[in-house]
Amino acid sequence: MIKIGLDALGGDLGVNATVPGAMEAIKEMKDIEIVLYGDEAKIKPLLTNSERISIVHTDKAIDMGEHDPVKAIRTMKDSSLVMALKAGKDHEVDGVVTTGPTQCVVVGCHLIVRKIEGMQRIALCPLIANYDNKPRLLLDAGANVELKPEHINELATFASSVAEVVLDVKSPSIGLLNIGTEEGKGREVDKETYEVLKNNKNINFYGNVEPFAILNSPCHVLITDGFSGNMCIKSVEGTAKVMSKMLKDEIYSSFKGKIGGLLLKKNLNRFKKKMDTSEVGGAMVLGLPIPVVKAHGNSEAHGVMCAIRQVRNMVSSDVIAKAILKLKKGDSIGEDK
Amino acid sequence: MIKIGLDALGGDLGVNATVPGAMEAIKEMKDIEIVLYGDEAKIKPLLTNSERISIVHTDKAIDMGEHDPVKAIRTMKDSSLVMALKAGKDHEVDGVVTTGPTQCVVVGCHLIVRKIEGMQRIALCPLIANYDNKPRLLLDAGANVELKPEHINELATFASSVAEVVLDVKSPSIGLLNIGTEEGKGREVDKETYEVLKNNKNINFYGNVEPFAILNSPCHVLITDGFSGNMCIKSVEGTAKVMSKMLKDEIYSSFKGKIGGLLLKKNLNRFKKKMDTSEVGGAMVLGLPIPVVKAHGNSEAHGVMCAIRQVRNMVSSDVIAKAILKLKKGDSIGEDK
Repeated sequence: MIKIGLDALGGDLGVNATVPGAMEAIKEMKDIEIVLYGDEAKIKPLLTNSERISIVHTDKAIDMGEHDPVKAIRTMKDSSLVMALKAGKDHEVDGVVTTGPTQCVVVGCHLIVRKIEGMQRIALCPLIANYDNKPRLLLDAGANVELKPEHINELATFASSVAEVVLDVKSPSIGLLNIGTEEGKGREVDKETYEVLKNNKNINFYGNVEPFAILNSPCHVLITDGFSGNMCIKSVEGTAKVMSKMLKDEIYSSFKGKIGGLLLKKNLNRFKKKMDTSEVGGAMVLGLPIPVVKAHGNSEAHGVMCAIRQVRNMVSSDVIAKAILKLKKGDSIGEDK
Repeated sequence: MIKIGLDALGGDLGVNATVPGAMEAIKEMKDIEIVLYGDEAKIKPLLTNSERISIVHTDKAIDMGEHDPVKAIRTMKDSSLVMALKAGKDHEVDGVVTTGPTQCVVVGCHLIVRKIEGMQRIALCPLIANYDNKPRLLLDAGANVELKPEHINELATFASSVAEVVLDVKSPSIGLLNIGTEEGKGREVDKETYEVLKNNKNINFYGNVEPFAILNSPCHVLITDGFSGNMCIKSVEGTAKVMSKMLKDEIYSSFKGKIGGLLLKKNLNRFKKKMDTSEVGGAMVLGLPIPVVKAHGNSEAHGVMCAIRQVRNMVSSDVIAKAILKLKKGDSIGEDK
């Protein structure tokens, strides 16, 4: 039985998304049990089933708008997020799912779960929608503002193992997000990173990929430092949001448009669904001894269920042990530098 | 009379866009004359008017796919781009418009036009579409892979003067593109840049802006280094392209969708036009003693005309002299460091 810890009070919807998400997951996957960290009084009325479900009570939650993650994690030891992560650290659960505030999750992973011995950095690695409907991985989406070439290299090896399981591909190709496709493009750090990735025998290095191709990617994993990755992801999200808004405005701007919009309703919903990565899962925190998946703060029940499935697949395939083995083989796991 | 040099052989469409664009501009603006650098035999048949038009003949063009800009600019002295820039440098024309390959334009500006004495860097500064239909400026979109805080500071002062004219706003607000909105976010360089921008009395500093807001910006100018700016712009362009493609696919995927699409045709065209910044102009190269505007490589006649109008407005408002004055006043123009 795979035991998954769920931060039940995280996210914009709190228990209204996490508990129904857990119910959906329990129904779909017979090999999991879920521990809900959260307010018993709020959780219990939402349970449609008590099979393989347990509750560890707390009514404290970290606010979604929390601006001081380090302080929050250090002081709110009885918050649902910290308790779920602590359970992961203590092997009371095999993996953790949260919809809590991203930077608090990252800091919590750092301070509570702690990285795998020998790994130098952890990275935030979301699934990204893609034109061909096959999602991709992108890292680092913002766990570290700066990363050295050797950090990106060890994360690339780790992400390669994870991509095999999460994307279900053999020998996933890894592209370096950069301002040009040719070798020698970018800052000094990008040129050096290109060199180390090229020489890393444990990965299938594709070369540079420009952010033009971020949603129509020629490779399975896109890697860069946490500042650039965060800037790219936020540019993509912002563009998608504004374009959807503009499109909606245009449709509602005329009577003919409204009729057209009605006829297109199904197509537009399918389009929206294609752009929505919560359908496939959440952002993984890579470099930890257990799977931790952070689903979008505005996730509904189905998004939570997908994140639970993602953790379950990572546990059942033993992906982290495999990644560590690959890192050791490549000698890219060493001492903390 | 304002004299504008036009690289007639640049862009994907060459003379088929540049010459009709020049014709449109001559008709609209009575205070300009245009010098076309290009192939006389190809240009002449396309002239509908010879008023205020002259041709400087060359049949050499720098290829749009040129991979070695420095070599191209150094060796192809008789190319239409180099000749137009040289005419700008020698004050034979008051400003230059080109649809040539971006990196060749940047290198040509560096090596031929040369930056204003005392300016430390030049920057590529495109107009960006915005949700409210009022375009914004973004820099550096890729002239420098790395910029120090003092470089960004002098460019911010320069861009502030330019934005007053090009966007027609008083005291334009300048935002630092960053991974978080609070002070203290980002890499060391971003934190330092925040400090110097905050203390720059010659600009109206807004604070940090996340790339979420890149197309729905709370301020008039978005500034960052050339690597980050390029990554953001390419993420935006890539997302817009894939979303448009997905939308089109969805519309054509069913009969009802096609009918809906037909009814929405006008609305979708308006939507497309909103996203299209070539309607308002091209990317300026800032930090030069003359206006140089690089319109999109795939510009059609109207895009070329808009870029010509942009150069004409910059010349007639004497914006560069004003920007230099502001820089000197702020003591942020000094020696080449």
